[in-house]
Order: sequence, then C-alpha cells, then structure tokens
Amino acid sequence: MINNAKITPIIWENNTLKLLDQRELPHQETWLCLDNSKDTAQAITDMVVRGAPAIGITAAYGVVLAALRGENLAEAMRTLADARPTAVNLHWALEKMRQVIEIAESDASMAESLLSCAQAIHEDDLTSCLAMGELGADIIAKEVLDEHFSVMTHCNTGALATGGYGTALGVIRSLAGRERIQCVYVNETRPWLQGSRLTAWELKQEQIPHLLQADSAAAHSIREHDIRWVIVGADRVAANGDVVNKIGTFSLAIIAKQLGAKMMVVAPRSTVDMTLANGSEIPIEQRPMNEVSTIKGLTIAPADTQCNNPAFDMTPANLIDVLVTDDGAIFQPDRSKMAAHFGEDA
Amino acid sequence: MINNAKITPIIWENNTLKLLDQRELPHQETWLCLDNSKDTAQAITDMVVRGAPAIGITAAYGVVLAALRGENLAEAMRTLADARPTAVNLHWALEKMRQVIEIAESDASMAESLLSCAQAIHEDDLTSCLAMGELGADIIAKEVLDEHFSVMTHCNTGALATGGYGTALGVIRSLAGRERIQCVYVNETRPWLQGSRLTAWELKQEQIPHLLQADSAAAHSIREHDIRWVIVGADRVAANGDVVNKIGTFSLAIIAKQLGAKMMVVAPRSTVDMTLANGSEIPIEQRPMNEVSTIKGLTIAPADTQCNNPAFDMTPANLIDVLVTDDGAIFQPDRSKMAAHFGEDA
Repeated sequence: MINNAKITPIIWENNTLKLLDQRELPHQETWLCLDNSKDTAQAITDMVVRGAPAIGITAAYGVVLAALRGENLAEAMRTLADARPTAVNLHWALEKMRQVIEIAESDASMAESLLSCAQAIHEDDLTSCLAMGELGADIIAKEVLDEHFSVMTHCNTGALATGGYGTALGVIRSLAGRERIQCVYVNETRPWLQGSRLTAWELKQEQIPHLLQADSAAAHSIREHDIRWVIVGADRVAANGDVVNKIGTFSLAIIAKQLGAKMMVVAPRSTVDMTLANGSEIPIEQRPMNEVSTIKGLTIAPADTQCNNPAFDMTPANLIDVLVTDDGAIFQPDRSKMAAHFGEDA
Repeated sequence: MINNAKITPIIWENNTLKLLDQRELPHQETWLCLDNSKDTAQAITDMVVRGAPAIGITAAYGVVLAALRGENLAEAMRTLADARPTAVNLHWALEKMRQVIEIAESDASMAESLLSCAQAIHEDDLTSCLAMGELGADIIAKEVLDEHFSVMTHCNTGALATGGYGTALGVIRSLAGRERIQCVYVNETRPWLQGSRLTAWELKQEQIPHLLQADSAAAHSIREHDIRWVIVGADRVAANGDVVNKIGTFSLAIIAKQLGAKMMVVAPRSTVDMTLANGSEIPIEQRPMNEVSTIKGLTIAPADTQCNNPAFDMTPANLIDVLVTDDGAIFQPDRSKMAAHFGEDA
C-alpha cells in the first residue's frame, strides 16, 4: 500500500506521464504510462484520473507530451480542453500553458518551459491544498465549541483528486491533525463510488475514524449523529458564488441548511470562473447510462434501462456558508463579495 | 417474463408458501418453497420478500405453516414478529392471526381458519392498493394542471412489495392509466437497489416511461426536470403523522419541500401505528455493513471498512403534503387529523 498523504496520482518521470488508475482502486494499484496528448485526454474522459485540480495538472502534462512528440500544439490543446466539460481547472491550466507557448523562443526551449510550467502547476496545487486545509480547519475549529465533532463529505477531494493532500479532504486532514474529528461520514457517491473506493481508502490509511454510508442516508445521519459541517470540493464556482460539484452536492446543501449543519466548499482559485455570471451557465456533464445501470460490469437493472446520469449539480450560493480558497475565505458568498475578492470578470 | 401487474411475489399452493426471491431480480426468477415458520421468518429477515404489506402477508402465511406442521404457535408468532423490526404491518397481520387462534375450536378447524384469514389479508391488500391507486391519482390529477408531468419515486412499492398493484407505485400505475405521466424518475435506492432492480423492472413491463438515477441526483432532477410530486410508501406511520420509510425518504422530503415539489405517502391502514405518539419512537433497523461495502458479492470499499447502514429514516409529518390510505386521504397530517381519522390510540 502506498502512503496516500505523500503521494499524488500523477507522476512525471523520464518524459512520461504516469497516472494511477483510479477506476481500479481500492483493489488494484495500476499505473498507466502515457506519452502523447490524445491518450492523456482519453484518460481524463475515462476518469483514470478525476478531481478538478488533478484534471488540470494532468492536462498541463498532456501539453508537455504534445511538445515532446512534436504534435500540433493547438490541436492537442483543443483535444485536452474537450476531455471533460465541467471542471474549469482544465481550461485554467491550458491557458497557463498557452501563455508559455506564446513567449517561447524555440521548439527546444518550449518543451522545457512547458514542463517547468506543468510542474509549477502541480507543486502550487499541493501548496494551495495545505494552505486551504489549515484555513478551513481554523474556521471550523473556532466555530464548533465541542472538542470532538463529526463531519460529512461527498465524493473524493483528497490527495487523489489534487496535487496531494486534498481540498475538502485536506480540511478534514487538518482537523484530524488537531484531534478534533469524532467521525467522518463518507457518502459513497454513486454512481462512480468515489466515496467508498477513494475517500474511504485515503481515510483508512490516515487512520481517521470514518463510516461509509449510502448517499441517501445523509439527512438521517446529520440529524441522528449531530453532524456539524458538510465539507465538499468544487468543479467550478461562478462569479456569484454558485458552485458546481459532484452530483448530490445540491441535495446535501439543501439538507444541511434545513437541519442546521454548515456547508463549506473548498477549492483553489483556479476553480473560480469569474467569466460566468451564475452557476446555471456552467455545463453539466451527462455521463454514460451504464455508469448507473452497472457496477464494474455487473448489471444491476433490467436490460436497456434508460438512465439519467448527470455527473454534477449546481448549488446556489445562498446555501453555502463559506467558500475556502487559497486566496482566503468568503463567508456567505455572493456576487459583490466574489468581485471584491477575485476582481471583476477576468 | 411474468406480467407483474397480475402477479404477487407470494403464492400459497398445496400447503406450501412460495416466495419470489427478490434478491435475484431482475436477472433471475427464482421461487423459494417454504413449509415452516422458522424458514419463513428467515426469508423475511434475509429480504427474500420485502415491502411492509408483503411482509405482513408473508408472516400471516407463516402462521398457517406453523399450524399445519403442529409447531408451538406462540413461539412461531414470536419468531415471525422478530424477523424485522420496523414495518408494523408484520405485527398487525400477526395480531389478526392471534385473534383467529383465540376463537378456534379445534386444531383441525384452526389451520383452516388461519388459512382463510391469511388469504383474506392477502386479497384485502390488493383491493386496498387498487383503491389507494385511484385515490392518490385523483388527488394529483386534480392538482396538476399540465396534461403530462413527471414524478419521482424511491424504493419499490409495487406489486412486489404488496399483495399486488402497489402503494406509491399503484398511484403511478393509475396516473399512467390516465395517460398523465411524462416520466417517472426512479431513485436506484442504495444500498439494496430496490429502485433499479425492482421498480425499473415493474415499470418496464408496464411500459411506463421512466429514467433510473442515482439517489443523489434527486434535487438536481426535481429542479431541472420540473418534477411535481414525489410519491413514496411507508413502513410505519405514527399517531402524529410522522412517517418511517426507506432510507432516503427524509432527504427527499426536505428537498421536495424546498424545491416546491409535493410529497405523497401511500400506505394501507395496517401501516398506521396509533400506539406510538411520534416517529422517533419507531425502531430503525440497522442492516449488515456488507450491504454498503459490497454489491452482489463484489467488494466496492477497502477491506473492513466500517459502514453506517440504517434501512429506514423518519420523515416528520410537517414535510408531508398528503397521506393516502385505504381509509381515505389526510392532507398535511398532524396529531389531531390522524386521531379524527383513525380514532385515538387503538
């Protein structure tokens, strides 16, 4: 077993991109070795790697591979940009790479510069996660008077979803480091089971106490087990503070509000998209129906059952108590606070 | 394939109780033949048969088997009563059988009288379902102005959960018969997948348009697809109108209320327990952890992951727009309306 606190699912080695295949966790630790941008884009689409920050980092390395292989860079960037529609970190990372391409003086120096940029994106993400973890933990530690308390999380926002440590799971790691966590209620996160396969795996290795549950147990657990904070990540945040995140986040936010639990969203600045006025403008990816009707090849519904499989949903800003970024925290985010914090439409 | 509208998962034949094994649906149609009360109780515990009304009917036949085999009837009744803790229909049916035992004049006539009683419970349940289906459909048909509209349901409340036709799914069948249904959004209902395995199977055979989805897609679907009513069953209703039903119902009720969808609970009189002042007194069954960490023997979480697996949750009466029973409908149920309708503590 690898120590997940220190690892990342993304490794650059000998001009090759190695991705830990998250479809196979927690049972198998399989690494895919990629040497071109098309396979990298396909790996993002197929969710070999997932999590908004991790997708951004992977796409950046994909551009480096394109340069090393002498691919048409504009085409490679387009293919990578289209790999998944919702997370904006992908576009943010590709824009950083595009700026490097623009100022590069030769092909040889370009590949080198692109690699430096990708590695900086990767390292900066880990630094951001560590900072957000401490900031989020500060906010919660101050707000909750009990020494020990329980929290809930959805999807996987840990080392596997980022450059390391995690966003929402980073906050939980920081709280656990301060010995404040009684229990982390982990929603399994159907259909892809990021909660049971990935988050439970990370928490187990960290020995942070946790209970895995069906997503629909959320309201019951919050009421019966006095859960104080629901802590989640984000795939894109609009200029008014609306948050698009893993399907189920909107349900959770409504439930938390009604039951008096607080809602924290943790995401780096690269997840914020100030060009979109509100969350309804963010594209919601519809994934294949068989992600709902099968589990690892096992059919769990009648043949040919039609499924609704939105991968994300949009939570209006008024349901969010605090948005934690590496640029600081915004309480009860709204359009004016977001603009004051991040500047107008970038 | 059997025509599920006409069938029941429970058949009495040649002094044997035949149960359709619902654990194997939709892939296999396997029937278990039972000839004693202990195996019948085990089949209820193991969820060979499930659904509050179906459990009550099965337990009644279990008493008949006990009488035919010359078992100790008091012991058999205790074993059956303990098979599952939450649904009150089980106790209601056993109480009916106990009354028959009390007035029986001989052992020979007792078995015959018990069988008549069990068959009456079975037949009455189908009659009740047909009546509730029409009543619930009347209420919704009148309230929704659009000709076609979408509804959502959770768990399985169809022919498989009852003496036939179904409770909440009976209302949906009746609405479909009136050609009012645009789409039924079917929550898969983790961990046991009653939605994907059973409800999708029934709707497919009835050719009622439906989409299967992860439970956590509920809020997104209600908002984005203009779902007007959430229609569910119940395992026990307390004297103040609080409803205990499949885990996830409480989450759905909160979400429906906040998003302007209406919440209908459909259950026969035998589900109402006027002896309990409120829903917090209803025992919530915790089922085995491996129902969450595995799916049909396939492990989906790290080894030894601890799970929280409440099979039911409690929805406060103030989140319910209408309770439909075979004794009539109660709008915005509360203690006084329930008492006026069903009489004080029976």
